[in-house]
Amino acid sequence: MDVPHQLGVLAVILFAAKLSGWAAQRIGQPAVLGELVAGIILGGSVLNVVDSHDSILHFLAELGVVILLFEIGLETDLRKLLAAGPAATAVAVVGVALPFAIGYGVCRAWGLENLVSIVAGAALTATSVGITARVLSDLGRLQEPESQIVLGAAVIDDIIGLIILTVVAGMTEGMDVTPLGIVQITAVAFGFLVVTLAVGTLLVPRLANAIRRIELPGVTTTAALILALGLAWLADVCGSAMIIGAFAAGMLLTRTPQADEIEHGVAHIGQFFVPVFFVVVGAAVDVRVFNPLESDNWESLAVGSGLIVAAILSKFVSGYAPFWFKGRKAVIGVGMIPRGEVGLIFAQMGLASGLFDAGLFGAVTLMVMVTTFIAPPLLKMLFPPTQQSLRHQDGIADLVT
Amino acid sequence: MDVPHQLGVLAVILFAAKLSGWAAQRIGQPAVLGELVAGIILGGSVLNVVDSHDSILHFLAELGVVILLFEIGLETDLRKLLAAGPAATAVAVVGVALPFAIGYGVCRAWGLENLVSIVAGAALTATSVGITARVLSDLGRLQEPESQIVLGAAVIDDIIGLIILTVVAGMTEGMDVTPLGIVQITAVAFGFLVVTLAVGTLLVPRLANAIRRIELPGVTTTAALILALGLAWLADVCGSAMIIGAFAAGMLLTRTPQADEIEHGVAHIGQFFVPVFFVVVGAAVDVRVFNPLESDNWESLAVGSGLIVAAILSKFVSGYAPFWFKGRKAVIGVGMIPRGEVGLIFAQMGLASGLFDAGLFGAVTLMVMVTTFIAPPLLKMLFPPTQQSLRHQDGIADLVT
Repeated sequence: MDVPHQLGVLAVILFAAKLSGWAAQRIGQPAVLGELVAGIILGGSVLNVVDSHDSILHFLAELGVVILLFEIGLETDLRKLLAAGPAATAVAVVGVALPFAIGYGVCRAWGLENLVSIVAGAALTATSVGITARVLSDLGRLQEPESQIVLGAAVIDDIIGLIILTVVAGMTEGMDVTPLGIVQITAVAFGFLVVTLAVGTLLVPRLANAIRRIELPGVTTTAALILALGLAWLADVCGSAMIIGAFAAGMLLTRTPQADEIEHGVAHIGQFFVPVFFVVVGAAVDVRVFNPLESDNWESLAVGSGLIVAAILSKFVSGYAPFWFKGRKAVIGVGMIPRGEVGLIFAQMGLASGLFDAGLFGAVTLMVMVTTFIAPPLLKMLFPPTQQSLRHQDGIADLVT
Repeated sequence: MDVPHQLGVLAVILFAAKLSGWAAQRIGQPAVLGELVAGIILGGSVLNVVDSHDSILHFLAELGVVILLFEIGLETDLRKLLAAGPAATAVAVVGVALPFAIGYGVCRAWGLENLVSIVAGAALTATSVGITARVLSDLGRLQEPESQIVLGAAVIDDIIGLIILTVVAGMTEGMDVTPLGIVQITAVAFGFLVVTLAVGTLLVPRLANAIRRIELPGVTTTAALILALGLAWLADVCGSAMIIGAFAAGMLLTRTPQADEIEHGVAHIGQFFVPVFFVVVGAAVDVRVFNPLESDNWESLAVGSGLIVAAILSKFVSGYAPFWFKGRKAVIGVGMIPRGEVGLIFAQMGLASGLFDAGLFGAVTLMVMVTTFIAPPLLKMLFPPTQQSLRHQDGIADLVT
C-alpha cells in the first residue's frame, strides 16, 4: 500500500469537494450537489483520480456516512420528533409507501427482476434530512408549520428508510425473502433501535456525568465518537445497519449538557470525512451510461427518467396526505422531494451486491441528483426567502456543508 | 473488508488510548506513554485486538503522524527554529554519528555480521519527533530554547535517518552504494525542505488571503489540511519524508491570520487520529521476546541491553555537542533519547530482508520501547511542567493530547 499516494488523493478529493461545493452554492444549489459533481469528475469515467473500489477510500467514505448520520442524530430531538404530529407521520408514511410502490412498478414494468426492483424502489423512499433542512434554513423558513412538518416527516422517513435498508441489505446478501423473514429483520432493526434508545436513555446521562469529571482535552468529543462508532459496530453485529447505530448515538447525546460541545467537535471531523463519502459516491457514477447517442444506454436512461418522474410526483403527492392541514401543502410536497445520502447508500448497495448494473446505478444516482437539483429553486418560488435569510445562514446550515 | 468491524476496532483503540492516557497522567506521566501501553496491550502478543499490519489501521496511523507533525509545525516559528539552527545541527550530527558508531560496535563485538550491524546501528540514529514533541508539549515547554533545539535536531536527524534508510535499504537489496549516490539522496531530501519553505513563504500568504473571501463553513481548516496532505505527498515524491512535508505545511501557516482557527480545527481532527498512531506503534511490539525465563531470548536480551545503553548514552552526550549553548544541555540530551517510528521501520526492514532474526528484531524493538519510556519521566524531572500545562489550558497541549 502506498500511503503518500493515498494522502495525495485525499488532498485532491477535499480540494475538489470544497471548490465544487462552493461553486454549487454560488449558483444557488446545495454544496452536496457540488461534491457529487466533483466525485463524478474525479471518478473512473472522467479523470480517473479516485478509484471508488479502493479499500482505504471506501473505509473513509463509510466513516464519513457514519459521522454524517451521527451529526443528523445530534440534531434530532426524540421528543420533538414524537410531538411533530400526525401530519408529519402521514406525510412520512405516504411519502415512503408511494415512491416505493411507483418506483418498484416502473422497474417491474420495464422487466427488471423482483429484488432489483425492490432495491431501486427503496432508493426512492427517503427524503434527505440534511439537504431539506439546509434549504429551508437558507430560506429563513425553518420555524414555519410547513417546514416543521417537512422536517418531522423527513426524519421519520429516514428511520423507515434505514429499516428498509436493513431488510433490503439482508435480501441482497441472499437471505430468504419470506414474509416471516421480513418481519424478523424488521423486528431486529426496530428492536435494536428501541432497545438502544431505551438502554441509552438510562445510561448515557450517567456516562455524560462521569465524563465531565475526566480532565483530558477533547475527551467529550472522543467519548461521543466512541459511542457512535461502537453503536455503529453493534448495530451491524445485531443485524441492523451501521448508520442506524450512529443515528441512535446522536439522538442519545442530543439532550446531554455536552451536546453543543460534541456538535462543534464532530462538525470539524465531519468536514473532513463527509465530503469523502459524497465524492466516492459520485466517483462510482459512470457518466458514459448517460450518453444518449449510445443505444446501449437507452434502457437505463428510460428507467432513470421513469424513476425521476416517480420520485418527484410521489413525494409531491405525499404533501397532501395530511388533508386536514390548512397551510400550503404544495410547499410540504416540494420540500419532501430531495433525496440524498440514503438514496445513494441504496444505489451503492445495489452496485456492490451485483444487483445493479452500471446503467441502473447511474439511473438511481441521476434520480438523486435531479431531485436534489429541482427542489431548491421550486421551494424558493413557492416559499420566498425572508429578509433575514438573505443576510445569512443558520446553525443547521453548518452541519451538511 | 469488514467496515463495521474496523469501526469497532477504532472505537476500542480510541477508548483504550484515552483511558490509558488519562491513567498515565494520573500517575504523573505524559498521556502518550499511556497510549503506547494501550497499544501493547491491544497488540498481537497480548489481547490481539489490534493488528498492526492491517492496512486500514496502518493508513490511519500514518495519517495520525502526518497530522501530528502538521500540528507541531503550526506551533513552530521558522525564525526561532533557524535561530536554534547551529546548536540543533550540532546535536543532530553528533546524535546520528555517535549512536550509529556505538550501536554498530556493540553488534560487531557480539559477533554479528557487518551489514546486520549497520542496519542495527542505523536503527539507533533517529529521534522520534512525534514522541519528543508530544512530551514537550504535554509539559507546556515547547517554546523554550532547549525544546526548540531538540525539535530542530529531531527534524534534522529524521532527514538524516531517512537518507540512511534509503542507503541501507539499497544495501540490503544488494545494490552498489556509491558516495555520489549518497550525496544525491542527501541533496534531494534537504533541498525539498528548503525549496518548499522558500516557495511557500511567497505563496501561502496570498492563498490565505484568497481563502478568506470564500464563505463556506470549515473552509479554512480544510484548506490547511489539503496543504498538509499535499505537501506530505509531494515530500515523498521528491524523495524526502511525508512527515517533513506536513511539518513544513504547519510552519508555513503559523504566521497567517487564520493560524488560530486552523490550530483549533486541526486539534479536533488530531484528537481522533493521533492516538491511533501511538496505539499502532505499541501494537507492533511482541512482548514475548522479552521473557527472561526463555533461554532463546537471552541473546536478544543481551544485545538489546547493549543497544539500550548505547542508545541512551549516545543521544544524551549529543545534547552537549553545542558546547556554546548556555541553557540546560542535559534537557537537550534527554529530549533526544526517544526513538520511535523510524527505529521501528529499520527493525522491520531488517526482519523483512532476512538480516535480523526474531531475537535481533526484538532487541531493536526493546531499544525503541525503553528509550521511549525512559525519556518522559526523566524529562519531567529535569524540565518540570509549567502551571499552565497542569491546567491543560495550553493551546498546544489541547492540540496533541
